Amino acid sequence: MKKIMLLLLLCLPFTGFTQPGTQQYVCPPCGPCDNKLFDKPGKCPDCGMDLIQFNPETMKQQPLTIAFYLQDGVEVLDFAGPMEVFSYAGFKVFTVSRHKAPLKSQGILTIVPDYSIEDAPPADIFAVFGGNSSSTSVDQAVISWIKARDKDTRHYFSVCTGAFILASAGLLDNLTVTTFHSSIGYLRKKVPSAKVLDNARYVDNGRIITTAGISAGIDGALHVVSRLRGEAVAKEIAKEMEYDKYVPEQGVTATQK
Amino acid sequence: MKKIMLLLLLCLPFTGFTQPGTQQYVCPPCGPCDNKLFDKPGKCPDCGMDLIQFNPETMKQQPLTIAFYLQDGVEVLDFAGPMEVFSYAGFKVFTVSRHKAPLKSQGILTIVPDYSIEDAPPADIFAVFGGNSSSTSVDQAVISWIKARDKDTRHYFSVCTGAFILASAGLLDNLTVTTFHSSIGYLRKKVPSAKVLDNARYVDNGRIITTAGISAGIDGALHVVSRLRGEAVAKEIAKEMEYDKYVPEQGVTATQK
Repeated sequence: MKKIMLLLLLCLPFTGFTQPGTQQYVCPPCGPCDNKLFDKPGKCPDCGMDLIQFNPETMKQQPLTIAFYLQDGVEVLDFAGPMEVFSYAGFKVFTVSRHKAPLKSQGILTIVPDYSIEDAPPADIFAVFGGNSSSTSVDQAVISWIKARDKDTRHYFSVCTGAFILASAGLLDNLTVTTFHSSIGYLRKKVPSAKVLDNARYVDNGRIITTAGISAGIDGALHVVSRLRGEAVAKEIAKEMEYDKYVPEQGVTATQK
Repeated sequence: MKKIMLLLLLCLPFTGFTQPGTQQYVCPPCGPCDNKLFDKPGKCPDCGMDLIQFNPETMKQQPLTIAFYLQDGVEVLDFAGPMEVFSYAGFKVFTVSRHKAPLKSQGILTIVPDYSIEDAPPADIFAVFGGNSSSTSVDQAVISWIKARDKDTRHYFSVCTGAFILASAGLLDNLTVTTFHSSIGYLRKKVPSAKVLDNARYVDNGRIITTAGISAGIDGALHVVSRLRGEAVAKEIAKEMEYDKYVPEQGVTATQK
């Protein structure tokens, strides 16, 4: 019931600008320009991609899907904060792990993943989290699986040391990124071509969003929602969650040229 | 590895004040006076309880236990934030539900509880959370079970509409409390003798701590740790979690007279 206003808001970011009888155009999902509307076809002035026709009905019928990859030992707040945010945003969230066997989060919470890497469907967004993430970042079966799904993945989202999993898949090369505060130096060594920030709550590279440690995942997820569904939706979610502590300026947008 | 400094800190709040060869005294767990040390036996000047001998070795060997009651539909961030905090504080956290069958949190996350109400051991702290909490607050089997455990429970902790479960057990009568922002009015009707605050992130009544909605559970849990393990431990946990957004002044201490 408390989500009714939010569900209405979910239709607003685009439809609020749409005038009857006119066709509008948007940039394919790629970066901060995703939620801009244009009156005619052409190229996006921000990223140069070809604009596509905007169809609000299609968007409403197809909620964004997001795969939460959870390894045994995953930090509980790393994934739960973003799960709360994306759930409120109407994203279709599912969990996937190396196997379907129950896993322990934080050594406490027993979780049964929805899928294993053998049968997980594709998702618009692929999310990874800290907490024993090193076991996954050296697991070639998982890394190969992530790479094989790359063509179907629009965005990557990492919290805390989940960044090391994306790094192992070669996804952070030459990007500006961040990770858990104690792991900044390790990530700099692992990905020498990346600029690893130690003073950003999240860093948005357009396709790939990395956040700082644990609780920073909440802010990063709100930022993703702000980009993909509009700032009004993100603010409404923060209000519902009583997370008035969200400060967008604590994040960095580093759109690649 | 990142918890090593924290584990050291866990011994500090009391042992830091302990001088070799001297015996010190503390108040039994009851309220904000719990973490004060006294040089001689007597009565606590804050609550009037008889002081007991302080034994840091015993405290180290017996971590506080906390039961997380999770109902089907429980809000994921409601419990995950406090679970992260209490885990860092070295509390022994376990989960319990009505039955042992898997439950869904947020309609997404499949969780297998450690215990049912048939076999759950006693715990120092009993914690309840929002998200379909009304199903539990009218379940007489659960409410009776909570009441039967009362003699072994030192503290109660509720997040969001978890307060309604405590209310059904008669635990909020005549107290100053809080709950999820949309449910303030409902709680006032349910517990007319309680003062329900709509502007507090958490309210501490000594034995019972209630918090506002969803993300406020993080702040409430940090407050509980601050009381039971010392402010330095709470601050260190907030730092590790990158939750520099913790503002103790957003909570209210309403010690009962």
